[in-house]
Amino acid sequence: MEIRVAVVGAGSWGTTVAHLICAHAPTILWAREEAVAEQIDREHRNLRYLPDHPLHADLRATSSMAEAVGGADLVVMGVPSHGFRSTMEQVAEHLRPWVPVISLTKGLEQSTRLRMSQVVAEVAPGHPVGVLTGPNLAKEILAGHAAATVVAMADVSMAEALQPIFGADNLRVYTNTDVVGAEMGGALKNVIAIASGIADGIGASDNTRAAVITRGLAELTRLGVAMGGEPMTFAGLAGMGDLIATCISPQSRNRHVGEQLGRGRSLEDVVAEMDMVAEGVKAAPVAVELAEEHGVEMPIARSVASVCAGEQTAIEAYRSLLARSRRPEVYGLDPGGR
Amino acid sequence: MEIRVAVVGAGSWGTTVAHLICAHAPTILWAREEAVAEQIDREHRNLRYLPDHPLHADLRATSSMAEAVGGADLVVMGVPSHGFRSTMEQVAEHLRPWVPVISLTKGLEQSTRLRMSQVVAEVAPGHPVGVLTGPNLAKEILAGHAAATVVAMADVSMAEALQPIFGADNLRVYTNTDVVGAEMGGALKNVIAIASGIADGIGASDNTRAAVITRGLAELTRLGVAMGGEPMTFAGLAGMGDLIATCISPQSRNRHVGEQLGRGRSLEDVVAEMDMVAEGVKAAPVAVELAEEHGVEMPIARSVASVCAGEQTAIEAYRSLLARSRRPEVYGLDPGGR
Repeated sequence: MEIRVAVVGAGSWGTTVAHLICAHAPTILWAREEAVAEQIDREHRNLRYLPDHPLHADLRATSSMAEAVGGADLVVMGVPSHGFRSTMEQVAEHLRPWVPVISLTKGLEQSTRLRMSQVVAEVAPGHPVGVLTGPNLAKEILAGHAAATVVAMADVSMAEALQPIFGADNLRVYTNTDVVGAEMGGALKNVIAIASGIADGIGASDNTRAAVITRGLAELTRLGVAMGGEPMTFAGLAGMGDLIATCISPQSRNRHVGEQLGRGRSLEDVVAEMDMVAEGVKAAPVAVELAEEHGVEMPIARSVASVCAGEQTAIEAYRSLLARSRRPEVYGLDPGGR
Repeated sequence: MEIRVAVVGAGSWGTTVAHLICAHAPTILWAREEAVAEQIDREHRNLRYLPDHPLHADLRATSSMAEAVGGADLVVMGVPSHGFRSTMEQVAEHLRPWVPVISLTKGLEQSTRLRMSQVVAEVAPGHPVGVLTGPNLAKEILAGHAAATVVAMADVSMAEALQPIFGADNLRVYTNTDVVGAEMGGALKNVIAIASGIADGIGASDNTRAAVITRGLAELTRLGVAMGGEPMTFAGLAGMGDLIATCISPQSRNRHVGEQLGRGRSLEDVVAEMDMVAEGVKAAPVAVELAEEHGVEMPIARSVASVCAGEQTAIEAYRSLLARSRRPEVYGLDPGGR
């Protein structure tokens, strides 16, 4: 069975995934800008996002959604959360029946607070939907470093069929049936990465960073489980794994933003000098809203949202976290509530 | 209710815990060597392990077990695993009825493969037993950095009564009733820290380190759950938290050993230049034996044991881990077996 694949979105991760899949299946990459598509199609290189990495010689690229999606047996969505719905609407016009859609996007829709797989289900009902997520920095994988990732779909037989398509010698793919958990892990880890960065910026120790990451995962898990995710997913690659990679990597934009906040700078100053917005800054208030809706405690996300909004300084937030009343380590994990 | 506390063992962590408790309760530290006890008692400083840190002015020290334990309402054991049983036998001679014993020791008894709390139960049956464990580097806590830890006991009301005794402004104490999980997390994390160090030594990326830590926690959890621990404990401070701190800290001896192995050096060479043995080196073969006994897969621990035994090089072990057959992310978590 030959599976033809369309990857929608030519950012660094979409391009990398297209390059990896191309080793196993005919693959076409959709880029919004015609010039970008032409350049990738002709030179097998993405000069904008990955100038140093040659791409698979068989990789095609186009800016025509009809051409990319019309013949595809699998569609992989690699566009940012703010443009996800409108792009998915274009995809849906050309999508053949029953073709599965896999999201690479780690974020929540701002206005609706929906996960990307829920947006897919709204726009293209009836199509199997899943996510590919985990601790995966595009440049490290392209450089040949080993990594592991998760493909999560409700139907495990489909996830198993996709394992060899996404895998590579240096990318080990695990399956999981918990789409909610996998998706919430990816969406919320950036918030905790800001908190971990704040600890770094304040000059905290390895103990402190480990505690922030661990308690951050605990609260992220509380919310994810209240929303229907499985606790063990959050202990896996899509939760803990991605969180650790983001919190320890100097490349993480979210960790960087936190570090600068921890040094006492304002969010405006930090963001002004970056060419991309750190997603955790947007996700923090959404996480707080979801936590209120589901009745779970998320003190770290609340502090991050508060610092980002300029309501308290990083030092004040850090001190108030330490002053919380004593707790058992595990609480608030009953599915559906407190 | 005044609780008088004896801390048995004047290493860096035992001394630190005694210093912290001393702020809340009359505390006496037992040191094996009379000269060490006298020096701490007189100068309120542990010149051997913590020369730069003044200790609480009220902290007493003695080398008399009768003096330390005879009047204690709480005994805290801070001795290495290889000397734990013989020291506990001395403690038991002076222990008053029903006095709880809390272990600080992160290891397994080599000959019996027992956890320290099991050794306490064998030597002093009828005494409530618990553990204090988490991502806690003594010098960081003494330097005032914030940290979090867990006190695990079967009886939650006792654990709650101990929370304020162990806590400090910069040390947040959580309770947990899962003694098995808390103890196995501490005992096994050093094995995974060696694997993480190997990845560092080979020159792997942040993705790879995150994946090693995450999959390491997954297998540590499989074994711990098969032995009766709760999955969520391993996702907490005693599991994930301690594992992360050990894997990212330059101070970790186990991570250091792994890094040197990853650079192609032999275990003999690495150990010869260290003044203390890394506990993970001893724990790895014990973990493999326990995994076989309980019928769970621990590929990373097996690789670490194999590299430490000189049966394969670090690079060979690393490649064979990547070549394993594909798996679902969560498996082998049924209590009691596969």
